[in-house]
Amino acid sequence: MTTQDKPGARAVKIPRPRIAVFAATSLDGHIARPDGGLDWLEAANARLPPGEDCGFRAFLDGADLLAMGRASFEAVLGLGRWPYEGKPVEVLSRQALVLPRALRESVSVVAGEPAELAARWAAQGLRRVYLDGGQTVQRFLAAGLVDEITLTIVPVLLGAGRPLFGALPRELALVPLETRSYGFGFVQLRYAVQPG
Amino acid sequence: MTTQDKPGARAVKIPRPRIAVFAATSLDGHIARPDGGLDWLEAANARLPPGEDCGFRAFLDGADLLAMGRASFEAVLGLGRWPYEGKPVEVLSRQALVLPRALRESVSVVAGEPAELAARWAAQGLRRVYLDGGQTVQRFLAAGLVDEITLTIVPVLLGAGRPLFGALPRELALVPLETRSYGFGFVQLRYAVQPG
Repeated sequence: MTTQDKPGARAVKIPRPRIAVFAATSLDGHIARPDGGLDWLEAANARLPPGEDCGFRAFLDGADLLAMGRASFEAVLGLGRWPYEGKPVEVLSRQALVLPRALRESVSVVAGEPAELAARWAAQGLRRVYLDGGQTVQRFLAAGLVDEITLTIVPVLLGAGRPLFGALPRELALVPLETRSYGFGFVQLRYAVQPG
Repeated sequence: MTTQDKPGARAVKIPRPRIAVFAATSLDGHIARPDGGLDWLEAANARLPPGEDCGFRAFLDGADLLAMGRASFEAVLGLGRWPYEGKPVEVLSRQALVLPRALRESVSVVAGEPAELAARWAAQGLRRVYLDGGQTVQRFLAAGLVDEITLTIVPVLLGAGRPLFGALPRELALVPLETRSYGFGFVQLRYAVQPG
């Protein structure tokens, strides 16, 4: 019998999953061009040594769920290949979305405030959620619901675009966990977000 | 007789100094709070091991001139101590400024577009200029007149503030030169800006 089966279990505080961001930005903090374009990142990735993915696959494998914003979902669709094969994905959107047929098994569209989503994920027994997308990351950070940030900095200044970070109701202290400097010019910073 | 003394020397193309940025930002890219406040950076610096300055003194010593924006100048004045003792400083401002008496020997107030300033510095024989301040850095980057960026990332998300980077007329490729990860949580990235 699991916690969820017990009568009155809804009143029991279920630990929420660890919510972790894994994102690449330009040095000036953009995750995409103003129109959502990822061509600059694709171009940079194309110069990586064969087999190098800066820890992306391991990070993805460690997550029970990928939760991403609608804009990021559409940007990834625009790449023409789906990098999350087999991984359960929730697209956070207030609008209904028509999903490509091939994705209808693994992708669902959900809406809700970060706290509601986190509570639902906890109730589902998820232990680790991969959070993606600028607006989504910003909403969860503002709600105090991001535990970890892995930021890969691509050596370019885009000068315009969609930012990863945004306004916060209060500042958040970070605890550095790891820094990696790749020979091809990417730098990866990993931080824990200090609980408020 | 120097180049400047020669008749017609103004027509000779004088190499401009190397223009280098040395700045600290939060992970979300702010150099100061919305009101220019540097308290968060002072607090972070106060936790540094004795004598540790993340290369600041060596960088300053290597510069013939520090050119900084008015807002940065005022923020530094607000600290109550002048970190650039003995170094020639130009404050870039269209407004006249009343300088503290103690700074009148080393600090001057100048105005001009980046290209004019760079030409003037070249004519003065300067070899290396330390560029400081968000708006100033943005103007020089937009003009293609920044050669090097040393960015020290402080482990905090401020959630609001004055950004180091801004809009550019075109993207700028960077060449990573060095990455340093400090035990106390700062990460320092050094890049050359690829000529356009």
